[in-house]
Amino acid sequence: MQRKFEKIGLWGRLLERSVAEPALQISAHLLKKGLEVYAPVGPNRQPHYPGVTSVEPSEIVARVDLLLAVGGDGNLLRAAKHVARTKVPLVGINRGRLGFLTDISPDEMLGALDAILAGDYLAEERQMLEARISGAEHESGPMLALNDVVLQRGEPGHTMDFVTEVDGSFVNSHAGDGLIVATATGSTAYALSCGGPIIQPNVDAFVMVPIAPHTLSDRPLLLKGSSRIEARVVSGADIPAYVACDGEEIGRVGYKDKLHIGPARETVTLLHPRDYNYFELLRSKLNWGRNNRSGHGKRSP
Amino acid sequence: MQRKFEKIGLWGRLLERSVAEPALQISAHLLKKGLEVYAPVGPNRQPHYPGVTSVEPSEIVARVDLLLAVGGDGNLLRAAKHVARTKVPLVGINRGRLGFLTDISPDEMLGALDAILAGDYLAEERQMLEARISGAEHESGPMLALNDVVLQRGEPGHTMDFVTEVDGSFVNSHAGDGLIVATATGSTAYALSCGGPIIQPNVDAFVMVPIAPHTLSDRPLLLKGSSRIEARVVSGADIPAYVACDGEEIGRVGYKDKLHIGPARETVTLLHPRDYNYFELLRSKLNWGRNNRSGHGKRSP
Amino acid sequence: MQRKFEKIGLWGRLLERSVAEPALQISAHLLKKGLEVYAPVGPNRQPHYPGVTSVEPSEIVARVDLLLAVGGDGNLLRAAKHVARTKVPLVGINRGRLGFLTDISPDEMLGALDAILAGDYLAEERQMLEARISGAEHESGPMLALNDVVLQRGEPGHTMDFVTEVDGSFVNSHAGDGLIVATATGSTAYALSCGGPIIQPNVDAFVMVPIAPHTLSDRPLLLKGSSRIEARVVSGADIPAYVACDGEEIGRVGYKDKLHIGPARETVTLLHPRDYNYFELLRSKLNWGRNNRSGHGKRSP
Amino acid sequence: MQRKFEKIGLWGRLLERSVAEPALQISAHLLKKGLEVYAPVGPNRQPHYPGVTSVEPSEIVARVDLLLAVGGDGNLLRAAKHVARTKVPLVGINRGRLGFLTDISPDEMLGALDAILAGDYLAEERQMLEARISGAEHESGPMLALNDVVLQRGEPGHTMDFVTEVDGSFVNSHAGDGLIVATATGSTAYALSCGGPIIQPNVDAFVMVPIAPHTLSDRPLLLKGSSRIEARVVSGADIPAYVACDGEEIGRVGYKDKLHIGPARETVTLLHPRDYNYFELLRSKLNWGRNNRSGHGKRSP
Repeated sequence: MQRKFEKIGLWGRLLERSVAEPALQISAHLLKKGLEVYAPVGPNRQPHYPGVTSVEPSEIVARVDLLLAVGGDGNLLRAAKHVARTKVPLVGINRGRLGFLTDISPDEMLGALDAILAGDYLAEERQMLEARISGAEHESGPMLALNDVVLQRGEPGHTMDFVTEVDGSFVNSHAGDGLIVATATGSTAYALSCGGPIIQPNVDAFVMVPIAPHTLSDRPLLLKGSSRIEARVVSGADIPAYVACDGEEIGRVGYKDKLHIGPARETVTLLHPRDYNYFELLRSKLNWGRNNRSGHGKRSP
Repeated sequence: MQRKFEKIGLWGRLLERSVAEPALQISAHLLKKGLEVYAPVGPNRQPHYPGVTSVEPSEIVARVDLLLAVGGDGNLLRAAKHVARTKVPLVGINRGRLGFLTDISPDEMLGALDAILAGDYLAEERQMLEARISGAEHESGPMLALNDVVLQRGEPGHTMDFVTEVDGSFVNSHAGDGLIVATATGSTAYALSCGGPIIQPNVDAFVMVPIAPHTLSDRPLLLKGSSRIEARVVSGADIPAYVACDGEEIGRVGYKDKLHIGPARETVTLLHPRDYNYFELLRSKLNWGRNNRSGHGKRSP
Repeated sequence: MQRKFEKIGLWGRLLERSVAEPALQISAHLLKKGLEVYAPVGPNRQPHYPGVTSVEPSEIVARVDLLLAVGGDGNLLRAAKHVARTKVPLVGINRGRLGFLTDISPDEMLGALDAILAGDYLAEERQMLEARISGAEHESGPMLALNDVVLQRGEPGHTMDFVTEVDGSFVNSHAGDGLIVATATGSTAYALSCGGPIIQPNVDAFVMVPIAPHTLSDRPLLLKGSSRIEARVVSGADIPAYVACDGEEIGRVGYKDKLHIGPARETVTLLHPRDYNYFELLRSKLNWGRNNRSGHGKRSP
Repeated sequence: MQRKFEKIGLWGRLLERSVAEPALQISAHLLKKGLEVYAPVGPNRQPHYPGVTSVEPSEIVARVDLLLAVGGDGNLLRAAKHVARTKVPLVGINRGRLGFLTDISPDEMLGALDAILAGDYLAEERQMLEARISGAEHESGPMLALNDVVLQRGEPGHTMDFVTEVDGSFVNSHAGDGLIVATATGSTAYALSCGGPIIQPNVDAFVMVPIAPHTLSDRPLLLKGSSRIEARVVSGADIPAYVACDGEEIGRVGYKDKLHIGPARETVTLLHPRDYNYFELLRSKLNWGRNNRSGHGKRSP
């Protein structure tokens, strides 16, 4: 059974012009339908969102039953962390070009929202990762990631040696720039640039992708979604290594520290229009089918 | 609860010297323990396996409750098709160098078998694929694959254009040499050579790996283990394309034919010694950790 | 100093509609300018090319001082073999979408030809490869290749083991699907799909690209343009391996045969409009800059 | 004609035990032969090098006619910068495991040195790159690189947008982690980990390898050895990007700065034993031929 939404939150850089334009259209549309609209905007700030209830970013999730992330995928990733501990679902509205996560374009957004508010939508639960640093001197996290957790050498130009374990079993000693652990959602982000596979969002798995590995057979490794990964830097750590969740630094790890990565209990629910199609998104974002490189010799007559 | 095994089958090229040597040792050892041993060997053939009951290859599975595949991984793949429709588990014994599937080496085989016969083993169920060709003129399959189903242009030198669907949704139109659909088990075989990821055997997923794709963003795609894939050749098929399961040709597909690939109901049960470790196997087979290429510049001090 | 052209040949599938349309426009245009036009067309064939002198394909090169290849890159590759032993330069005119080699589009072709005939062009000499098979029983070649020489297993499903030497030094023993030796020109064709680099046409080098190699560190190898490569199939050759130049089979190699690949003395001269830009061609053909996949997380704000 | 060497310099971490051991053996051996030996060691430092003339590291090149780099490849890279402006050739002696550049092992070093001193050697001239930063506020370089010049985002977690030109022609706008420009010598270092090809040292070319590019068709590009490359960071440069030559930072580039990379006039001469074989080095360092992953299915019988 589909949920009914009455209190709608807006999330994004609502004071920037490219975001404000669609966001103002949306808020006017929702208010006209008699819904309550909440946003981290204030009476003294420009542009003014008439009729919208102003709330702090940290409080918005507690006030709404649906959150609209207006902006790029990065904006939705930040929203995801706020809704993860609640049941509030997310809708991603792009300012222009489609994202992997923000799959509703401005020109179809009002119709798409009407359908969603009428209960006509696809709900999709996306897995998240949880990362934690434990060390002699400090402890940090757990922090959530919808896309990926990245361990990366602290300074360009230096190789990092690190070891990995999965569920208590030693996996490999790696040398290179670092390691990405990505969810299916994050498989099309940084992990893809580093040679990882595309993972259909409903696959219960994470992928461990080494970044610029010295050993050429150190390849992406798909692990069950319940796996617990541990990584330790074993050399080259005069400068502690960087750890980030969805691109936000959560801490640094030095010689005696451990980075723990595993499935989060929290998930994020994305709502999509009925005609949402993951493969269509891939085709569009990856230029599939626009096979410009053909026409070479007998191979492509 | 572990099973008890009393009738043991031997599978492999038992008349070839490199296989006969360990196989004879094994049969003598098992007979001495009072077990029945079955093998596709005959009284008039050399070498002679004294005390071993001779059976046809096609009947051996019906007679035994445990099958020992002695040889390389290819040998075990062939055995897998025979045991797939039964509950008979497989043990893989290598003639020398370890395989991904034949993980018991000759020098530890007698001890390992004793432990397995005593009920001290790890049982692992491996998923299989099922492939079927449907066409105007012919129909073939379903055939089983433990490693992979491969669709490949019928002749070198010609690009093949083909389209794929997953669960009825159009995925992509591809141009290139073909497509591999691999199980987790097969992820370390041909798929790895074509850029696919390594998949831990317990992940419920298949991977679709394009072979030498024209479009450089046509990358390996991880699909849920229940996915049904359909592929159709749309051009370049004057010479029908080749279809194989685990390297054995099952048919050819021309212009109006469809190749259907999906999860098989059958699975294969592999028995391993208690200390079996998948990551150790990866490290050994992929030369992980033997990081010879270091020592270059400040990157590797 | 630029050359003057008076006898122009047309090369392509001149009786097919998509080619005939631009070809007829071109021949009319050239005849009106008082030039002689030669083509492998006859009075009894349709469409009729009025005023064009009919010649056999094998003789056209001897009759003209400029050859226009109308069609795709494959068409130009075939023309290249005919002009290679002469000084006749080639101009590539595409029927529609640009190719890597056929860089003049139909809507600009008359202007481009006028400029070229007026001596306003860039001339570019492209290196070719020469391949030869030597064996106990047969000998074949030497054959020319403008793009690549490909050695590929004779039948899908079987790995081929082969060894390579460069200038008499042993390089590697390979296992996999085969080997591509590509010129700079061919680096954007099959070699690119198999992981090879893009090579600027003026670099004096060939690239050896293994096809789906078993050993993951068996990577593309750039060799000086004067290098002589020898390849021998050492196993898996019950079915002789396939050898092709620019996609045309030149023979098969079995167990005791050798494939010799080296620089050809012949070259091909391509004429381009003044504003020809190799990097622009790359950007267009490889969809560079249409960076649709951005917008993910903090990595792409 | 071969040169005669009388004043030999030692280069490396000569006070560290693993280096001192072979270095002391070498200096004793050379002194016994009546040669002069120079090294950046002093009378008050341990271990003591008896008979060796102590010089400053910055002066050693002016005093010797042959420099022996004892240590890893990184040590030789540092030595290379000192000898580049002179005619002093380099010999690379490894402390243990062979490097790509330090190709003489401790157990054969005395014999190899005797042969070299007797004029029995191969001399190989290696090309270098020169990098220079020009900007509104600062200027730096030119600095030399024997392996590579690396442009990398200043902070992990942020994508960098940058544009490249070659010889004044726009090449591409890139998004990703950065760019490596490598010599043939450096092709087996960081560039290889990022997907670049192996380049035979005698090929007159550089390779431009994008690091973790967003656009999947943004592939390694081989350029003629005389090419002049310019790179400019166009966004994501709140934190200036890092620039390094052979792993040593030479500066940072911000929004209005340019990084210029081109061939250096300086070269480095490496001396090798007569039996030096580049392909053998590749086979050893890249584990070629140790084809452990075979044995899978019919593909590898």
